[in-house]
Amino acid sequence: MKFAVVGTGVIGSGWITRMLAHGHEVIATDPSEGAYERMLTQVKQNWPYAEQMGLAENASIQNLTFTPHLEEAVKDADHIQENVPEVEEIKDAVLKEIDFYAKPEATIGSSTSGIMPSELQANLSHPERLVVAHPFHPVYILPLVEIVPGKQTSEETTVKAEQIYESIGMDVLHVRHEIEGHIADRLMEALWRESLHIVNDGIATTEEVDKAFTHAAGLRYAQYGPFMTFHLAGGEGGMRHMLKQFGPALKKPWTKLIAPELTDDLYHKVVSGSEASSQGYTMSELDQKRNEFLIKVKELAEQYWPSDSKAMKKSNGAELQ
Amino acid sequence: MKFAVVGTGVIGSGWITRMLAHGHEVIATDPSEGAYERMLTQVKQNWPYAEQMGLAENASIQNLTFTPHLEEAVKDADHIQENVPEVEEIKDAVLKEIDFYAKPEATIGSSTSGIMPSELQANLSHPERLVVAHPFHPVYILPLVEIVPGKQTSEETTVKAEQIYESIGMDVLHVRHEIEGHIADRLMEALWRESLHIVNDGIATTEEVDKAFTHAAGLRYAQYGPFMTFHLAGGEGGMRHMLKQFGPALKKPWTKLIAPELTDDLYHKVVSGSEASSQGYTMSELDQKRNEFLIKVKELAEQYWPSDSKAMKKSNGAELQ
Repeated sequence: MKFAVVGTGVIGSGWITRMLAHGHEVIATDPSEGAYERMLTQVKQNWPYAEQMGLAENASIQNLTFTPHLEEAVKDADHIQENVPEVEEIKDAVLKEIDFYAKPEATIGSSTSGIMPSELQANLSHPERLVVAHPFHPVYILPLVEIVPGKQTSEETTVKAEQIYESIGMDVLHVRHEIEGHIADRLMEALWRESLHIVNDGIATTEEVDKAFTHAAGLRYAQYGPFMTFHLAGGEGGMRHMLKQFGPALKKPWTKLIAPELTDDLYHKVVSGSEASSQGYTMSELDQKRNEFLIKVKELAEQYWPSDSKAMKKSNGAELQ
Repeated sequence: MKFAVVGTGVIGSGWITRMLAHGHEVIATDPSEGAYERMLTQVKQNWPYAEQMGLAENASIQNLTFTPHLEEAVKDADHIQENVPEVEEIKDAVLKEIDFYAKPEATIGSSTSGIMPSELQANLSHPERLVVAHPFHPVYILPLVEIVPGKQTSEETTVKAEQIYESIGMDVLHVRHEIEGHIADRLMEALWRESLHIVNDGIATTEEVDKAFTHAAGLRYAQYGPFMTFHLAGGEGGMRHMLKQFGPALKKPWTKLIAPELTDDLYHKVVSGSEASSQGYTMSELDQKRNEFLIKVKELAEQYWPSDSKAMKKSNGAELQ
């Protein structure tokens, strides 16, 4: 497979590293001054980590070509990954150009963090071949990619795109309903906005907010998401018990975010979804798996956490008085 | 030190395990039927994990006593940990009773998830000896405890309480401003509410939301909190570049949570806080530390994630059509 990467900043270079590491040829393009040197520096910096994760047989940085001309980059590519700045006018113009020069059967993935695919494909001649394929930094390590088809995307493109991303070692999350920010960024953005409010209201410093997250919930979230975490916090009763005990907190001012009503329908979705995720394990078996993981991840994280609690407590004491 | 634990559910039993593991005597009390047996079962289930994390010299489950009578439990205790249900009337009544029977020099920590300490101490005869000491499930593994003094808490109590919790292996986060939900639960609750909205609006299933988090951001958050994560995503420019690039997203409907204005003051707090957290490391050094950690945590998490992406994609396909 021949990949083209359009836009070679942090995300573009991350894609290039991942594609090369899986043994593919990549042709990259970016019109900005010094883009080639910056990209090469980044790919070389990323490479030892790609090696550590295991390279494909023919993997080599030698399989990378660069051209400042978009036409040259995309004309023979089987799949094109677009990573230009998150400004709709720029995305539109570049995607139109890609669409014009690419082979008709080539597929296009856009790395957009928040724009919906139906908007991105609206002005293309071959809108059916575009999906959003949203990765996470660092792209060469983190496995998730959100695949979001637009209204005009063909079923064939979606299936093909998912196969392509799986072939470069990614875990595909098929997002079946378009929404600004897709799914993962909405979760991160909610956390980010609440964090900003806490700092803005003078409650805590950025370091304290970070610590409040990494030293407890953050460790749990590397294994289980928000739903499974609460399912496991409910003891033998799981999510049913949790919603009874903490459902009423949804009415309290515990964040600046207004919660949805806990209707019967929502209750059912949340409980049955959490039970499905348990995959037949008993609560006590899930507890064991969680404990085993948490002890290991805590030991690991302790070696990497940026600050020691005592130093932090003292150093920041003054800032909020 | 003699500890008393009032309320022996999941959180109470977690505290008991941690205190025993650090070699202390614990006297536990809970008036509900079958409380003793349930607590003992839980402490015994927790014990192998406490062993794995390392026991203190004299640590033994034999150092645990149970009584259904609160007076007996608290009268000789040096420190009392309260974990009764999260209902203000119950907390008030039990804390008054603890206050009445405890030695005047004993300190009291409440495990409340969301109630402010000034409310909890309002009706006590010795309000100066109460702090909120909010732990995270499982208490015997996760290190964080949020210590929140109320308006009437003495400086002496706060210092003493922090020493007590550090002596049982915890990382103290001193919360200097009371707020409902303290800090960590506000972050978790923001994530939880946005997750509920996504499921409620029919965008994704609970399993998909969980995967969207665990397979990308969740891995990062075990090491760095929301601020350091964005600081590192900004490349060489760090948080300054990030706020320029993603600041405008605060105006977009990327969550149901309204963001604060990015004023100069907030900008300054966020940038200088993130730079302080970097502790003199260059962005490239931080990148390396992050990569090393992410590769290890990903390898670890892959063994513990509940579902494989393909099985999930298929099993849930029908539910949202």
